[in-house]
Amino acid sequence: MADLTLTTFDWIPEMRRGFARDLRVRWALEEASLPYRVASVPFGDRKAAHFAHQPFGQVPWLTDGDISIFESGAILLHLGELSTALVPADPRGRSEAMEWVFAALNSVEMASLPWTILKLTGNAGDTPAAKPLNDFLKLRLNRMEPVLAGREWLAGSFSVADILMSDVLRLVDRLDGLTDHPACRDYVARATARPSFAKAHADQMAHFAAADRRAG
Amino acid sequence: MADLTLTTFDWIPEMRRGFARDLRVRWALEEASLPYRVASVPFGDRKAAHFAHQPFGQVPWLTDGDISIFESGAILLHLGELSTALVPADPRGRSEAMEWVFAALNSVEMASLPWTILKLTGNAGDTPAAKPLNDFLKLRLNRMEPVLAGREWLAGSFSVADILMSDVLRLVDRLDGLTDHPACRDYVARATARPSFAKAHADQMAHFAAADRRAG
Repeated sequence: MADLTLTTFDWIPEMRRGFARDLRVRWALEEASLPYRVASVPFGDRKAAHFAHQPFGQVPWLTDGDISIFESGAILLHLGELSTALVPADPRGRSEAMEWVFAALNSVEMASLPWTILKLTGNAGDTPAAKPLNDFLKLRLNRMEPVLAGREWLAGSFSVADILMSDVLRLVDRLDGLTDHPACRDYVARATARPSFAKAHADQMAHFAAADRRAG
Repeated sequence: MADLTLTTFDWIPEMRRGFARDLRVRWALEEASLPYRVASVPFGDRKAAHFAHQPFGQVPWLTDGDISIFESGAILLHLGELSTALVPADPRGRSEAMEWVFAALNSVEMASLPWTILKLTGNAGDTPAAKPLNDFLKLRLNRMEPVLAGREWLAGSFSVADILMSDVLRLVDRLDGLTDHPACRDYVARATARPSFAKAHADQMAHFAAADRRAG
């Protein structure tokens, strides 16, 4: 029996709420109907104990009994071993879910995250520095567009790959990066219409709102 | 019994040789002493059949019987299921290998790849656009430095996580990005001193050199 605790920050700035990566883990836990507790670490003053669980000083991490796992991708694969709601049971479906998990993080988010940094710092205009990175994202979205126009979910049925890919694309969409990619937009809408996403999102928002009340 | 074919490009520009991602797969196959064949697809004219195997039109992909897998991370996890030389067999070691696989690709390479693009296009100077991305890489390397100073390999024994992390850092090192991070540099030297790396690297170089001879 799994004994799951998700650790996230005690507080984050308002504009990042709804987008902290613990959402990916909450979403998977809701999809699989796995019970879990939530623990908090300081956002401001990150201690050695925090770095012992998460070497980059980020969140989330998950403990399952005496095993502690960081990286949301690794956490989702761990949860995938606990529930067929998260990773298909047949070898082909499982293999498809795996490749799309890595595609979400290492092909699409690898291009979207630098663009997000440029965008949030006001540097995404087509300057010599920004242009190759803007083009990199466009290249990836142009390839995701026919893939997502042709199927409901990435690996046959809904899986952890869809949690990761739709969450990556959701942040691009938030910063108006999907205007030319309607199938990507529809996919984000389809994924975030799931009750499990709504629950995970509401829980994250409530978690950080509670921190404001404690501070206030 | 696995029936493995690795597909890569028929030719790539000289400066990219030794760094194409099929190296990560070749390295894992050599570590595990798994026999495999190599197939080629055109670098220049990428056909629909190529995109059917690799939706982004990149390489590598691996077929194992009738299963076809893209994304080097997913391929390495697939091979990890075939050999304990690649992923530790105990639950804790396995879980550590998983988290570092994702850390290599989604925490470190996510920061190093945009920096590489800036560097290779001559835009890595501390301009307003480049500075946050340069800082992002520095942040990640500053955290990897104590981790790698304190251990030989990431997950107890050598694993796919080390293939990915050392290969990510090897490209940073090639572009002189590790001058302030001696433990990261030593780790790259330690990993690439393995006979399996030397064999994989020599095989990739020979593969692309053969293409030059055919063209000449």
